[in-house]
Amino acid sequence: MASLTGTEYPIYRTLEGKVTADKATIPELGPNDVLIRITHSGVCYTDYEFSRFGAPLAMGHEGAGIVEAVGSAVTTLKPGDRAGGGFHKSSCGKCNYCLTGRDIQCYERTIYGFGDYNNGTFGAYYLGKEGYVHKIPEGLSNEDAAPLQCAGATVYQALMETVKPRDRVGIIGIGGLGHLAIQFAAKMGADVVVFSTSKDKEQEAIGFGASEFVLLTEPEKVKAPVSTLILTGNKYPDWTKFLQINVLARDGTIVPLAAPTHGPLSFPADKLFWDSYHVRSSLVASRAQHADMLDFAARNKVKPVTQVRKFEGAETISAVFRDLENNKVRYRAVLEF
Amino acid sequence: MASLTGTEYPIYRTLEGKVTADKATIPELGPNDVLIRITHSGVCYTDYEFSRFGAPLAMGHEGAGIVEAVGSAVTTLKPGDRAGGGFHKSSCGKCNYCLTGRDIQCYERTIYGFGDYNNGTFGAYYLGKEGYVHKIPEGLSNEDAAPLQCAGATVYQALMETVKPRDRVGIIGIGGLGHLAIQFAAKMGADVVVFSTSKDKEQEAIGFGASEFVLLTEPEKVKAPVSTLILTGNKYPDWTKFLQINVLARDGTIVPLAAPTHGPLSFPADKLFWDSYHVRSSLVASRAQHADMLDFAARNKVKPVTQVRKFEGAETISAVFRDLENNKVRYRAVLEF
Repeated sequence: MASLTGTEYPIYRTLEGKVTADKATIPELGPNDVLIRITHSGVCYTDYEFSRFGAPLAMGHEGAGIVEAVGSAVTTLKPGDRAGGGFHKSSCGKCNYCLTGRDIQCYERTIYGFGDYNNGTFGAYYLGKEGYVHKIPEGLSNEDAAPLQCAGATVYQALMETVKPRDRVGIIGIGGLGHLAIQFAAKMGADVVVFSTSKDKEQEAIGFGASEFVLLTEPEKVKAPVSTLILTGNKYPDWTKFLQINVLARDGTIVPLAAPTHGPLSFPADKLFWDSYHVRSSLVASRAQHADMLDFAARNKVKPVTQVRKFEGAETISAVFRDLENNKVRYRAVLEF
Repeated sequence: MASLTGTEYPIYRTLEGKVTADKATIPELGPNDVLIRITHSGVCYTDYEFSRFGAPLAMGHEGAGIVEAVGSAVTTLKPGDRAGGGFHKSSCGKCNYCLTGRDIQCYERTIYGFGDYNNGTFGAYYLGKEGYVHKIPEGLSNEDAAPLQCAGATVYQALMETVKPRDRVGIIGIGGLGHLAIQFAAKMGADVVVFSTSKDKEQEAIGFGASEFVLLTEPEKVKAPVSTLILTGNKYPDWTKFLQINVLARDGTIVPLAAPTHGPLSFPADKLFWDSYHVRSSLVASRAQHADMLDFAARNKVKPVTQVRKFEGAETISAVFRDLENNKVRYRAVLEF
């Protein structure tokens, strides 16, 4: 273990829109630290967005790999275990949010892009904390576990907060998040309607577990209203038009999952009021739910569709970003280290 | 009972912005009908708004009075009982909403202003249906029960859906709804912060049960974030500015209670996302909750502050509307018949 301390390894940052290599050094591990050698990392739209903002952070937050070393207080992971993480880095552990299973809301949280700029999953190592990196269950490969660390945790949390078995749920968008949301929702016993702009994704949507496919340009064709609408894409529908045709049942809930770069989220007030529509925001899962999500995925065979690329340095990341720009990823790019 | 059938009585409509008297006739009662002789009716901002739209409906939906006659199937009310109602007129009784305590959401509902234009509480009689008119508990006068039929039911429902005892709740606006929301929330064991534009309402807010009073122009002075924000007024704050200063705690909920005449309800998407703010719409209470609300109000001495006006015809209604326009009602106008 001690042998790795001081080892230099490459990390990747974006500066002025360009992905560049930098170096980090493995420190002496603190008591709660878990050093993971990354074997795979998913590439999330958030990585791309942060790169456009030019934040000089060490990129990547959907990591999966093998535990190389653990700090003195760590009891739930040991070298050789497979583990993943990267988005949620820490919380205070003492506030009401932390004590009630909502640690992702903690005001002292550290999350990807905010407050830790030197430690990402696009690189040889990721330094996590016990509890914030999660053991990968048997039956789930590292390649498949990687996209679950953010995309999977995000949609699982959103569904668990809003959907019960038998409910009819609408998923808007089939991408990195959407194709997992369809699978999770179907495996939770919901009746899943997919709304998409791409007619050519219909068969895949059905394959993921949807019972109905509706073109986003023809929402009036939906067979019956849904009680929850999960927005996984990075564009909002025209809410006034979309809600007017009663796609969403009264007392129904909208969950927007991709807000950061949008302007205002704007709803027709009268329709919201008379039909009692709710908006439920959702970030990613807190820790307990993250662990549950991995277990649920393994037991129910929820599996991302991945495009694996052998990692060969900064240019590999740039190439994936170009694919994201051109809507060419089906459905999650995964870097293999 | 039979002697009243065929009796003509005055009702009041607005046509082209002018309140005019019209006539209705007491019909032969159907099996579930309950004929109430109105003694008091609250005047809600919705009455005023509908009058501006020029809907020719029989006005009034916060009625309280004495049961004069009941249909053959009615078992829970009898002549001489005191009863109130007027907003929620019927639901199908068979759909999922009706069977799960959410009958106000029923797609076949009849509510004030939609689908029954000849039967209001500004008049000698209101013809209700069993279950949709509610017995007034002992200890609650008709004068005080009237404003509870809409304003009370609205804020009670909103609070019951979002607030737990000990929670810190913000009430924006001290008017017909707000002054009841403060009382209900305080009696539910919540810590109540009132946001108002009127400095001169501070002492009354404290008297209603608030522990803190904040000028709406100085929201940054709030001592700690609230977990729920109930909007009772008819103006929205500038959400971008209001949320930026963390008046609302993460994972907190906004409940807009006065939307109908507003344009879009618009939130800053990034703030909503990163802080997981929710928006929970709320109309008025469904039937079970309406009955619970009356019981809760009676037992906990939740009591509207009323301005009673002896009813002398259409001009009395117009006079109250002028007071509403000029923000002169403290806090609920009640017509006495």
